[in-house]
Amino acid sequence: MTEADFTLRERAIREAVASQGFMRLVGATVVLLGPGKAVLSLERRDEVLQQHGFFHGGAIAFLVDNATTIAAGTRIDRFVQGCLTAECKLNFLAPAKGERIVCEAVVLKPGRRMTVVEAKVFSEEAGVQKLAAVALATIAITDTPKPG
Amino acid sequence: MTEADFTLRERAIREAVASQGFMRLVGATVVLLGPGKAVLSLERRDEVLQQHGFFHGGAIAFLVDNATTIAAGTRIDRFVQGCLTAECKLNFLAPAKGERIVCEAVVLKPGRRMTVVEAKVFSEEAGVQKLAAVALATIAITDTPKPG
Amino acid sequence: MTEADFTLRERAIREAVASQGFMRLVGATVVLLGPGKAVLSLERRDEVLQQHGFFHGGAIAFLVDNATTIAAGTRIDRFVQGCLTAECKLNFLAPAKGERIVCEAVVLKPGRRMTVVEAKVFSEEAGVQKLAAVALATIAITDTPKPG
Amino acid sequence: MTEADFTLRERAIREAVASQGFMRLVGATVVLLGPGKAVLSLERRDEVLQQHGFFHGGAIAFLVDNATTIAAGTRIDRFVQGCLTAECKLNFLAPAKGERIVCEAVVLKPGRRMTVVEAKVFSEEAGVQKLAAVALATIAITDTPKPG
Repeated sequence: MTEADFTLRERAIREAVASQGFMRLVGATVVLLGPGKAVLSLERRDEVLQQHGFFHGGAIAFLVDNATTIAAGTRIDRFVQGCLTAECKLNFLAPAKGERIVCEAVVLKPGRRMTVVEAKVFSEEAGVQKLAAVALATIAITDTPKPG
Repeated sequence: MTEADFTLRERAIREAVASQGFMRLVGATVVLLGPGKAVLSLERRDEVLQQHGFFHGGAIAFLVDNATTIAAGTRIDRFVQGCLTAECKLNFLAPAKGERIVCEAVVLKPGRRMTVVEAKVFSEEAGVQKLAAVALATIAITDTPKPG
Repeated sequence: MTEADFTLRERAIREAVASQGFMRLVGATVVLLGPGKAVLSLERRDEVLQQHGFFHGGAIAFLVDNATTIAAGTRIDRFVQGCLTAECKLNFLAPAKGERIVCEAVVLKPGRRMTVVEAKVFSEEAGVQKLAAVALATIAITDTPKPG
Repeated sequence: MTEADFTLRERAIREAVASQGFMRLVGATVVLLGPGKAVLSLERRDEVLQQHGFFHGGAIAFLVDNATTIAAGTRIDRFVQGCLTAECKLNFLAPAKGERIVCEAVVLKPGRRMTVVEAKVFSEEAGVQKLAAVALATIAITDTPKPG
């Protein structure tokens, strides 16, 4: 894949993600895309927290769901393929108390039918990242262009 | 546990959940609480969908995260214990295209330190429920009253 | 699928499973096969236990791995398809102290590319079954006849 | 923890593992133990394969189950604590065709009540390692000395 190809692919992904109502509601940001990689972040505000002032587990789960699917999506041919989350497993390691959370998703194994992605979620406070959650996800690769 | 005890417990849970900023943002509803059981629902609106008009995987993951923690919370003594999601695994079985999604979470095994909860997510359309996702979650039971 | 078709399918599965060196080493038994269902059992003997006299978690994991793949295999056309475990998640609920363990695997959602299977493991003691573990597995369906 | 302390801990773990009937049956080896780390290996022989000559998924699952519990066990005080697998999730990335498989388990987050461990399984062929599986496990830490 040439750099120009990836630029096209990145644009298509950013458009698809921007058209997700839930992404806009939650207010997450696509920080970085690369071949087999996606980084998303979410700033602290009351609307994404639980009752003790930590980021809500559901907000973390959303970030992981989107980042892993997007990471898989960087490796597919979007004219003929799409991707949909098949399953995801998430371990919470520490309360996410920071100013923002950042999810880094990396493809472990791309496949023609399914792609396995690993994700780490960091809570950032005063410039320091603390590991808050880890995940493994399987993304189904479809024959129809339905980018996830 | 008497019925009166459970009524107190239910009230405490409903208050805790109502104070979650993310629960209010997403707009989910606690439909039913029982000993070892929680049912939550989410109505279709653009803000909880992805780009193809299905419920967003992240919205489903949020509903599962909250329903499983709440189900575990129905079995604890909230004056001395709390609960926090330790981990969750979610399989998506079919696109959730319906008018609303309903998550039913049931405690499989309550524990002093951790509780295992099973969840099913149904997509409802014209009164018919279709299984859209299944999940298994482990909820950590803490010694301090931090209801999840 | 006619009954005769299933009889052929069952025979092919039993032959494939019988040719697994690890199945013979562990000494598990295929108790029952049906469309979308497989039940396997393992009798207590020192060689399948851990140091406290319970069934080893690895023996339970093996039983789940095989039962879920076999259950998925009952739903495929073995002349043109095969199946391989893509992923599995297993929660241990109670020590398996019984005389034997039984794993019941049921297909939740068959698919052309992947099939989702649920499994429960019971520990049997004096005719009473106790739930010892639960699992969710994703089985990849391949285009080549490699029955799992 | 001093080096002498760890030497005692390592000896206790090796003795516990050696007394597992299933470990002896499968024939795996503890290659390396360190604080928060365990490496186990299993040599190819017919008894640990499936019908196509690859390492059986159940043998891989066993290796992961044991390596993750042992890694967690390197971080506990074995006079007053024990550890038991609570749950494990395993993704298979490629068929394990090599001469042996090696599982490296590393503690991501030790805890007083539960410890989260990550594992990678490599298939080795002619000195080259290929990633065959990845896993995340939660190990329950108990107050009674039952080393896993």
